[in-house]
Amino acid sequence: MRKYRLMAPGPTPVPEKVLLKMADTLIHHRTPQFQTVLKNVNDKLKKVFCTRHPVLMFASSGTGAMETSVVNLLSRGDKVIVIRGGKFGERFGEISEAYGVRTVNYDVNWGAPADPEVVGDLLAANPGVKAVFSTLCETSTGIVNDIRSIGGVVSKTDAVLVVDAISGLSADELKPDEWGVDVVIGGSQKGLMLPPGLSFLSVSSKAEKLIENSDLPKYYFSLKAALKSYAKNDTPWTPAVSLIQGLNEVLDMMLREGLDNILVRHARLAEATRMAMIALGMELFSEKPSNAVTAVKVPKNVDGQALVKKMRDEQGMTIAGGQGDLKGKIFRIAHLGYMDKYDTIAAIAAVGTVLRQLGYQTELGKGVAKAEEILLDE
Amino acid sequence: MRKYRLMAPGPTPVPEKVLLKMADTLIHHRTPQFQTVLKNVNDKLKKVFCTRHPVLMFASSGTGAMETSVVNLLSRGDKVIVIRGGKFGERFGEISEAYGVRTVNYDVNWGAPADPEVVGDLLAANPGVKAVFSTLCETSTGIVNDIRSIGGVVSKTDAVLVVDAISGLSADELKPDEWGVDVVIGGSQKGLMLPPGLSFLSVSSKAEKLIENSDLPKYYFSLKAALKSYAKNDTPWTPAVSLIQGLNEVLDMMLREGLDNILVRHARLAEATRMAMIALGMELFSEKPSNAVTAVKVPKNVDGQALVKKMRDEQGMTIAGGQGDLKGKIFRIAHLGYMDKYDTIAAIAAVGTVLRQLGYQTELGKGVAKAEEILLDE
Repeated sequence: MRKYRLMAPGPTPVPEKVLLKMADTLIHHRTPQFQTVLKNVNDKLKKVFCTRHPVLMFASSGTGAMETSVVNLLSRGDKVIVIRGGKFGERFGEISEAYGVRTVNYDVNWGAPADPEVVGDLLAANPGVKAVFSTLCETSTGIVNDIRSIGGVVSKTDAVLVVDAISGLSADELKPDEWGVDVVIGGSQKGLMLPPGLSFLSVSSKAEKLIENSDLPKYYFSLKAALKSYAKNDTPWTPAVSLIQGLNEVLDMMLREGLDNILVRHARLAEATRMAMIALGMELFSEKPSNAVTAVKVPKNVDGQALVKKMRDEQGMTIAGGQGDLKGKIFRIAHLGYMDKYDTIAAIAAVGTVLRQLGYQTELGKGVAKAEEILLDE
Repeated sequence: MRKYRLMAPGPTPVPEKVLLKMADTLIHHRTPQFQTVLKNVNDKLKKVFCTRHPVLMFASSGTGAMETSVVNLLSRGDKVIVIRGGKFGERFGEISEAYGVRTVNYDVNWGAPADPEVVGDLLAANPGVKAVFSTLCETSTGIVNDIRSIGGVVSKTDAVLVVDAISGLSADELKPDEWGVDVVIGGSQKGLMLPPGLSFLSVSSKAEKLIENSDLPKYYFSLKAALKSYAKNDTPWTPAVSLIQGLNEVLDMMLREGLDNILVRHARLAEATRMAMIALGMELFSEKPSNAVTAVKVPKNVDGQALVKKMRDEQGMTIAGGQGDLKGKIFRIAHLGYMDKYDTIAAIAAVGTVLRQLGYQTELGKGVAKAEEILLDE
């Protein structure tokens, strides 16, 4: 018998009762019953996204919602600032370029967070910039950006701030309305504890004005159409009903636990993971680590790809390797969503075991001991 | 106790074992395990779509796949022919126009099928047309188009034929490779017996050539990216894993039943429904009815919207009303997907009951008797 454990930064484990809720009788989407579900979900999404503005849903991966932000806020020839400190920051640039939007790239070293002052300088040097794109947690490097400060800078200008919070949401603090974030993008398969297939996007009043004037082509991802339907607790296209039924359940779980408690839980699991990795003699990759995922440098003389493979094939535990230039150089362990201290302890134990198998000299149990210490009163 | 029965043309009922399969342990999408699932699914999809060409999947509603066909086959200023005989035919035109594609509209009376000769005339009158867009079953009117003849006409030209088979697939015969259909579009929540959230699109070699030269902007729906990943049993973005796990199960069910048998089952349920409605003294709306859905004219002096509402709220049965100008004038009963003779008989009985409640004079049981007769040896 081997259990299968999802310890990568998405998809994350889905609570059993949510799995069963999604297996419940499918309801037709153009009925008062489903309108009630949508109304409940829409109300609760605002709470979980910490915003008073609408949070729209799409049947798509998170990338679809990233594209939605670009094609609905901008017009041909507009200029935007893209913070690129990893694969997902770069994606905003790729999407913008695909639509003929001019990009000013702020290239941050992978593993470092963006400097809000540089964002301010770029805004000053590029008058008329329409939007700034950032990640909250840059999943590929495990850093968290200082969105509060970036928001402080951007909100003083006419530009809107779009934040990819797909992996960060509910793990790293984000107060969009207070911090000046206009669009928050989310995905179902991360902190929201669902299978992949739903994406989310919040829209501030400042963003709504840009939406009215945007001339980039769109249809399925039209926010005008989505907002019009949203006002009637409806959707423009057939929604992913079963995932939304699961979402309704997940949002209840989250609001019962309380958003602040969820943030604390993620912070403690993250701290335990980081300290355990250091106790095992390794170094963290991220200068400013996210509470969603911990990126660790693969020790010298250890085969990083073998580590990920053995974790998966022999320990039944999916962690993530490095992407792009980081392939084989880092590994990433999530502490995200439906995870508690014993999930984290299991992941740490498995890393210790596999490192030993790969010839790395470390005292077994040292990582777990550190984590236990940190999580003692959990 | 009231049971809930989905009798509208999507979402259709999901088999219990498929619901449970989707509640199974979620697997990570970048693993050999999931690659094996994808390979199996991709192979079986070709069989169910009756094509030797790749059938690509997207996390989106069917509309997303319709947009995918437009933005990947065409370039700015291209001219296309759009067969508009209902809401979904019109949608192809709306999407094309959103992207600056010039449309030649072939407006067909709602309730009538397109005339293949007219398509030929339009192709002759508009040299250089890049694509012809048609529906197989036009869900809004319940007709099925003669795709075989339309394909015969289009395949003689340089244009590609794109067919929205979202509601028709597996109910109305479609042989893309033999009939000259280049792109077949499908959705999960119809004949494929799944919840909504997945869409499908097959790509012929003729279509692949257009894809290489298309300059319309796209990112999430890029077929170049999708085809590149497809070759490696991978996906460009995070796929809707749980729905795909369900799809794997559904495709096995379909191949076990056999595609020809599935078509026969739909044809017989459709025939029984049509004849039962006539036996109840009503008229069919569609000149050439699809085997996926039966559109019936609401009898004089009966409130069509009340009929749909009472079916739903009192009989627990979701059927569809008319859309657009047809609101209140027709109702639509599906016989699509995971349905057998007793589902159809129940729907017919419910229609008879509600009609009586609404003051329509008919002999109770007359519709069901007709259906029983037709389905006697089922």
